[in-house]
Amino acid sequence: MNSNNIQVVLVNPSHPGNIGAVARAMKNMGLRKLVLVDPRKFPDPEAQWRSASAVDIIDSARVVSSLDEAIKDSQFVVGTSARDRRIPWPVQDARLTARRIVDHSVSENVSILFGREDSGLNNEELKRCNLHCHIPTHPDYESLNLSMAVQIVCYEIRMTELEGTLPREEDSDWENPFATAQDMEYFFEHLEATLVDLDFLNPAAPKRLMTRLRRLFNRVRLDEMEVQILRGVLKETRRVVGENRNK
Amino acid sequence: MNSNNIQVVLVNPSHPGNIGAVARAMKNMGLRKLVLVDPRKFPDPEAQWRSASAVDIIDSARVVSSLDEAIKDSQFVVGTSARDRRIPWPVQDARLTARRIVDHSVSENVSILFGREDSGLNNEELKRCNLHCHIPTHPDYESLNLSMAVQIVCYEIRMTELEGTLPREEDSDWENPFATAQDMEYFFEHLEATLVDLDFLNPAAPKRLMTRLRRLFNRVRLDEMEVQILRGVLKETRRVVGENRNK
Repeated sequence: MNSNNIQVVLVNPSHPGNIGAVARAMKNMGLRKLVLVDPRKFPDPEAQWRSASAVDIIDSARVVSSLDEAIKDSQFVVGTSARDRRIPWPVQDARLTARRIVDHSVSENVSILFGREDSGLNNEELKRCNLHCHIPTHPDYESLNLSMAVQIVCYEIRMTELEGTLPREEDSDWENPFATAQDMEYFFEHLEATLVDLDFLNPAAPKRLMTRLRRLFNRVRLDEMEVQILRGVLKETRRVVGENRNK
Repeated sequence: MNSNNIQVVLVNPSHPGNIGAVARAMKNMGLRKLVLVDPRKFPDPEAQWRSASAVDIIDSARVVSSLDEAIKDSQFVVGTSARDRRIPWPVQDARLTARRIVDHSVSENVSILFGREDSGLNNEELKRCNLHCHIPTHPDYESLNLSMAVQIVCYEIRMTELEGTLPREEDSDWENPFATAQDMEYFFEHLEATLVDLDFLNPAAPKRLMTRLRRLFNRVRLDEMEVQILRGVLKETRRVVGENRNK
């Protein structure tokens, strides 16, 4: 991906607060080029403060008077749209769209168009696009806030960029190595011996209790440190029980 | 998924505007249960108007005084967190977290915790969680707005719910069936004959031009209606060319 080749284009945004929130959403996900087509109120202090630490995006935003001007160098143009449209057009969800954007950005200029807060992009604007992107909202309430739509598309671009580099398993990020099967066997033997010492386990009929304990500890997956801690407890328990016996 | 079993819990939110934006983000993605732990300013008119058409979520939000009270019935608790934490904990990105949430929600009560705007969840709160969720923001600017974080997690839950039902190809949503190879052959024959009539194509050395035209039309994939339109144009062209010849 080349983020320098990707620009977010807001067509006639009404509320400067949304422009600020868009700038923050972009920077959070590693995009920096913002173009404003005929914004109703810009510059504006509300855009500044809503952008928080993305005020650099606001300051470097390009303001143009027409969509033609905004996208004149773009080789791949994506329009975000609600579902109802008169002309059938290639439509993808934000995840698939992000893949296309990331691919094209390597060697081409990409524009991602977002429409007005109240009415989106009109048909003439949608016709300028190579691809329409639809975010599958719930039928109970379809209308996303403008900056939320930008956030989702930028997030999907970031996720696409990171694909294959994120930990796929919850435990791949774990600090200690997980215990091996051998470690676990020694632990279970130690546990069983301790339970026998405690007269908690009858060595003549041990199976059910140990099976339950195995299921418990295997489900949780112990790391090496945790096994050491537990075995320390077992060792000390056996020592105390043995001392009591000898009294 | 059972969305009735999923609640979004905001811990000490400061800004009523964020509460409103969270309500909208939830409803856009089909979630409805909002819990507020000791909010600084609630109820508040700003929460109402920022929620737009999700004011029902605001009106039915449960306000409690402690996190314990918020999650007392929850069997699976997710905490959203920034990366730096002292205790290693199972961490997943929002996409993998959403899968866990959707799975657990079928039969269990799930809470998704979001922390304070400025400082997130504290260590004591994170320790109450079964899983920590991290949204992989860009290192240039890591701090997501609260409502944006909620939007992304709720979006991933919706995408998980819709998995397998969304069109996977841009054209599976197309209104007209695509032309068959046979249709395309008839079209290319018609096109070639027309170009010969126009003296644009030399039938003695036709290959290169037709190859280029084939490449063009095969790349774009015509639908049946488009083939009919083009063949209508060709038919009319041949008729006019024929009339001119006969003059």
